[in-house]
Amino acid sequence: MAVATQSLEELCINSIRFLAIDAVEKAKSGHPGLPMGAAPMAFVLWDRFMRINPKNPQWFNRDRFVLSAGHGSMLQYALLYLAGYDSVTIEDIQQFRQWESKTPGHPENFVTPGVEVTTGPLGQGIANGVGLAIAEAHLAAKYNKPNATIVDHYTYVILGDGCNMEGVSGEAASFAGHLGLGKLIALYDDNHISIDGSTDVAFTEDVSKRFEAYGWHVLHVENGNTDLEAIAKAIEAAKAVTDKPSFIKVTTTIGYGSPNKANTAGVHGAALGADEVALTRQNLGWTYEPFVIPQEVLNHTRKAVERGATYEADWNKAFADYKAKYPQEAAEFERYVSGKLPEGWDKVLPTYTPEDKALPTRKHSETCLNKLSAVLPELIGGSADLTHSNLTELKGKGDFQKGQYQNPNIHYGVREHGMGAIVNGIALHGSGLIPYGATFLIFSDYMRAPIRLSALSQAGAIWVMTHDSIGQGEDGPTHQPIETLASLRAIPNLTVIRPADGTETSGAYKVAIERAKNNAPTLLAFTRQNVPNLAGTSIEGVGKGGYVLVDSRGTPDIILIATGSEVSLAVTAAEKLTAEGKKVRVVSLPAWDLFEEQDAAYKESVLPKAVTKRLSIEAGSSFGWHKYVGTEGDTISIDRFGASAPGNVCLEKFGFSVENVLAKAKALLG
Amino acid sequence: MAVATQSLEELCINSIRFLAIDAVEKAKSGHPGLPMGAAPMAFVLWDRFMRINPKNPQWFNRDRFVLSAGHGSMLQYALLYLAGYDSVTIEDIQQFRQWESKTPGHPENFVTPGVEVTTGPLGQGIANGVGLAIAEAHLAAKYNKPNATIVDHYTYVILGDGCNMEGVSGEAASFAGHLGLGKLIALYDDNHISIDGSTDVAFTEDVSKRFEAYGWHVLHVENGNTDLEAIAKAIEAAKAVTDKPSFIKVTTTIGYGSPNKANTAGVHGAALGADEVALTRQNLGWTYEPFVIPQEVLNHTRKAVERGATYEADWNKAFADYKAKYPQEAAEFERYVSGKLPEGWDKVLPTYTPEDKALPTRKHSETCLNKLSAVLPELIGGSADLTHSNLTELKGKGDFQKGQYQNPNIHYGVREHGMGAIVNGIALHGSGLIPYGATFLIFSDYMRAPIRLSALSQAGAIWVMTHDSIGQGEDGPTHQPIETLASLRAIPNLTVIRPADGTETSGAYKVAIERAKNNAPTLLAFTRQNVPNLAGTSIEGVGKGGYVLVDSRGTPDIILIATGSEVSLAVTAAEKLTAEGKKVRVVSLPAWDLFEEQDAAYKESVLPKAVTKRLSIEAGSSFGWHKYVGTEGDTISIDRFGASAPGNVCLEKFGFSVENVLAKAKALLG
Repeated sequence: MAVATQSLEELCINSIRFLAIDAVEKAKSGHPGLPMGAAPMAFVLWDRFMRINPKNPQWFNRDRFVLSAGHGSMLQYALLYLAGYDSVTIEDIQQFRQWESKTPGHPENFVTPGVEVTTGPLGQGIANGVGLAIAEAHLAAKYNKPNATIVDHYTYVILGDGCNMEGVSGEAASFAGHLGLGKLIALYDDNHISIDGSTDVAFTEDVSKRFEAYGWHVLHVENGNTDLEAIAKAIEAAKAVTDKPSFIKVTTTIGYGSPNKANTAGVHGAALGADEVALTRQNLGWTYEPFVIPQEVLNHTRKAVERGATYEADWNKAFADYKAKYPQEAAEFERYVSGKLPEGWDKVLPTYTPEDKALPTRKHSETCLNKLSAVLPELIGGSADLTHSNLTELKGKGDFQKGQYQNPNIHYGVREHGMGAIVNGIALHGSGLIPYGATFLIFSDYMRAPIRLSALSQAGAIWVMTHDSIGQGEDGPTHQPIETLASLRAIPNLTVIRPADGTETSGAYKVAIERAKNNAPTLLAFTRQNVPNLAGTSIEGVGKGGYVLVDSRGTPDIILIATGSEVSLAVTAAEKLTAEGKKVRVVSLPAWDLFEEQDAAYKESVLPKAVTKRLSIEAGSSFGWHKYVGTEGDTISIDRFGASAPGNVCLEKFGFSVENVLAKAKALLG
Repeated sequence: MAVATQSLEELCINSIRFLAIDAVEKAKSGHPGLPMGAAPMAFVLWDRFMRINPKNPQWFNRDRFVLSAGHGSMLQYALLYLAGYDSVTIEDIQQFRQWESKTPGHPENFVTPGVEVTTGPLGQGIANGVGLAIAEAHLAAKYNKPNATIVDHYTYVILGDGCNMEGVSGEAASFAGHLGLGKLIALYDDNHISIDGSTDVAFTEDVSKRFEAYGWHVLHVENGNTDLEAIAKAIEAAKAVTDKPSFIKVTTTIGYGSPNKANTAGVHGAALGADEVALTRQNLGWTYEPFVIPQEVLNHTRKAVERGATYEADWNKAFADYKAKYPQEAAEFERYVSGKLPEGWDKVLPTYTPEDKALPTRKHSETCLNKLSAVLPELIGGSADLTHSNLTELKGKGDFQKGQYQNPNIHYGVREHGMGAIVNGIALHGSGLIPYGATFLIFSDYMRAPIRLSALSQAGAIWVMTHDSIGQGEDGPTHQPIETLASLRAIPNLTVIRPADGTETSGAYKVAIERAKNNAPTLLAFTRQNVPNLAGTSIEGVGKGGYVLVDSRGTPDIILIATGSEVSLAVTAAEKLTAEGKKVRVVSLPAWDLFEEQDAAYKESVLPKAVTKRLSIEAGSSFGWHKYVGTEGDTISIDRFGASAPGNVCLEKFGFSVENVLAKAKALLG
């Protein structure tokens, strides 16, 4: 194509391509192929459909855009730059993939305003998109009135072959089809190339048919390289179908425009090289220097700023009208979006005394969730098919289903990974919803990627994990967490809390809710089995991560450190040791990272350096415990897999008995 | 149905049902619903099709059976008992789900001979089945001759709604369709009930259509409760299609026979209760006491023993003929199956000196894999679409594809979770194949469940994980492992090795190959970036998990402990500190668990208790390191997420420089 024949639209599309080509070339790192091939669909989408306000990336009612194929991040940065976002300047693009730039290797919502979710690990983005669409559907059903619409936006996702190979995308897509999320529109960049070469080597299924099987509305754009009208018509058709999500397969050529590398894996994840860049310039008739965008292109694409101001002004007016008509709903909505908690919300959290009935902490969790739901209607969540084991139902509040999007109880099905990514999407909708997702603790393994991403991308999720030890019992080692707590505690920015009883469960929820509103995730580990309510446990103690629960006068001879269901063992053992004249301290340590955040004086007051005889008691791996028990301490822990037997038998056999605590403590005391 | 009308087949099927009902009732724990509904299809399969030898569960050419819906374990135990396996007696069934019984809550191959793989975590079993079918196809293509067939069996899988909701099953099924694995036959227990109730609440996709989209041969048995001939015909039809895997949807009623609980979630995962058991007995005309099986049933089902002896004898004869005609192939095949390594196999592993070129350890890994493949043709594996980043190709050996099953290079596509479960299936085929699966270390998060299961179920897998730190560089925090090493080290029975250079990489493979042949998995972590070859590194040292690499005379003032790419930093810093008159030891600690297995004297010789000034250096989380650095030591580690920038910049910024090692060491030395 010669320069003379380039339409304004072609110039715009080539602008996207060359921003990607030149940024990757400068960084000598990155993925030019996807932006080159997907530029037409992305341009059409952003130019003709996306309702956004570049000068206010957080405008509530914006359409959400997710680049699920996150390695093509330059596509997104180019779109943001061209649309006039302040977050991505041409200088930022020149700093692509450099230290502390606004343009990291993969899109990161916490770095670049305008990026909604963090993508890169494949399949996450489309599943996040399902979460964004769920949030929209929920809030729309809850707040919109026949004569007043304040929640009304689309969620658009561009995904690639890699996303479609990942199981998480299948889980989320099946669920989206079930829910009939009509305002979710996915554009599949069907370029038949992945890193290993042609998708023929590994991926020959009929993807469109699969999405039809999921219940999606499926379309095909045969020429995604140049047929802009076909792309636009497909998006129009997708919008017209309101009771199903839409999947538009857009057949493209990866690295379109590169004479020697288009349609090869060579253009997927590496710079083109100076020679091929020159040839691509020639081939596409692009006469501009790197990082120079024709003014006529900017004149056109930056109209998004003006449009955006109008969109937001119109919405503000609509909201003002709404507020006049529905002051109560408007106030609640405004509180949601502000991220604030209502005053006194935490007063509903119960505390307990030893006289209260012994219960599993999962049961206390159910109580907390239900009490909190009364004051925090922004709680929305559910379980991956274990509702009545995880005890996560918000009673009397109804199920979130097609046509009943106002209800908060989500049945995720047996789709832990999809649930995790969907929960992240709900959290990152930025509307103040507090999403939770639940399964057995062991199955956090199935959803480890989205749990990690919640911590990385500042998603205010609550992960409710029950059956938190070999106390799980008969299901056996496939279902009994051993190393799971350790592996989760190691994740940065994720607070893991394993409460000892009812009061500590309340403390755990206090932390989790506050963290959620501060865009930070929390993972809660609850028992299957009954635990007694202990004297001295406290909500405040949980907030500090660890605290002295039982103490003798003076410097202790020994410190017993325990979490969760094992705290009561420590307490009983301490009573017996005290009766024998020993000075014993029991420290409850439900949340390691919160304890580490305390000042040195507090930490020393709980775990004085001088006391080196320390015994940890936790029905899980010893991994990580040496930080607290030191080189002269010991652990009661499990460094092998569990076993199938009644939970109390397992606990006894693995050494979680008062007798064994006493024996180990006495061995330490010498 | 009245007792008078029961045919022998009905009696057999009811025997399965009541073994399950009564075992669950006695244990007061378990899942009766699936065995009650799936008993007809399981009976027809085992009675008319399965070629097994109950008296030799390890007979090589047996059909493999996988109960992917592992919670229905009593179905499998009933089948094993009725077929006459010594591993499951009626007393074992009475011990269902009790401590150290042969009948744990979920099928465990390492506990119960006759169980092929460990299931329970949903979706794993069907993906294991794909691995079993791959192993069969590979060995058949490699060893069978036009006039002599020694490898020829089917892999049958029963899976449920839960399995079909999990993404891992979709990944594996898509791949199986791509490969056209004609001897894989899956029976889908379509009972429309999961724990949360009707699948209508979460799972309304068209599963059959999805499997058609994957390229499977799809069949439907409309009445799986009583139409035994339809079940048999469907299995026949499945066997007749040899170029596609078959998916038989068998519509059943969960808890069939229970008047009040059939077709409800109530029968899914709980005992029926005495009253309902009695009603079910009445309803199904079952007059026998718990754990009493009519002799006519046993007379019939135990014919499997005689058939099995004939199968094995015939095969032995076929193999003897084969051996006469193809002694070389037969010898290799026998070595495979024996689990032995050829003498001197490890001589191919190279060692290096500091004069050798600095290379990434992933490059050394490629060298090892290719050298090993020359002497160990049982190596079979590949990458999840990162072949040329992971460097896992066995060069010149061809791709494992439909019609080319003899080749060892598997292109898994972007399906880490599926890959993991498939690798486990290949390992647990028990034919001596050594399977490996590769991806970036960070994406071990996507396949954590099968990695754990490899360790639990004694699968001799090798997990090849490259790009093992922030040295990964520009891809940024979504792609940079931080807590990943810690989270993997915490898994029992999994040896994690992070070698420092070329020689240690050889040591890592020596361990991994030997462990694989001993049915234990190993995870190898390799760098993306170059590392120098160090003086003193050794294959033997890696085998001990940790060893003294550099030492001053006498008791050291300080010990620097490092792994992988950070060992060279420690060595350089030690040189400088030594030049300044300090006594410095460097310990290379590539494999923590192997070091822990050494005797106390060796451990003390490497890390003497008296030396408390210790500094660890590893480009990952500090989590777990306090075991080695103690309370007076320090760590150079990363307890936040990474960043997008060139790898050398990331390493420098995060403190992985000789200067920072010196500064931290001097601070410790005071």
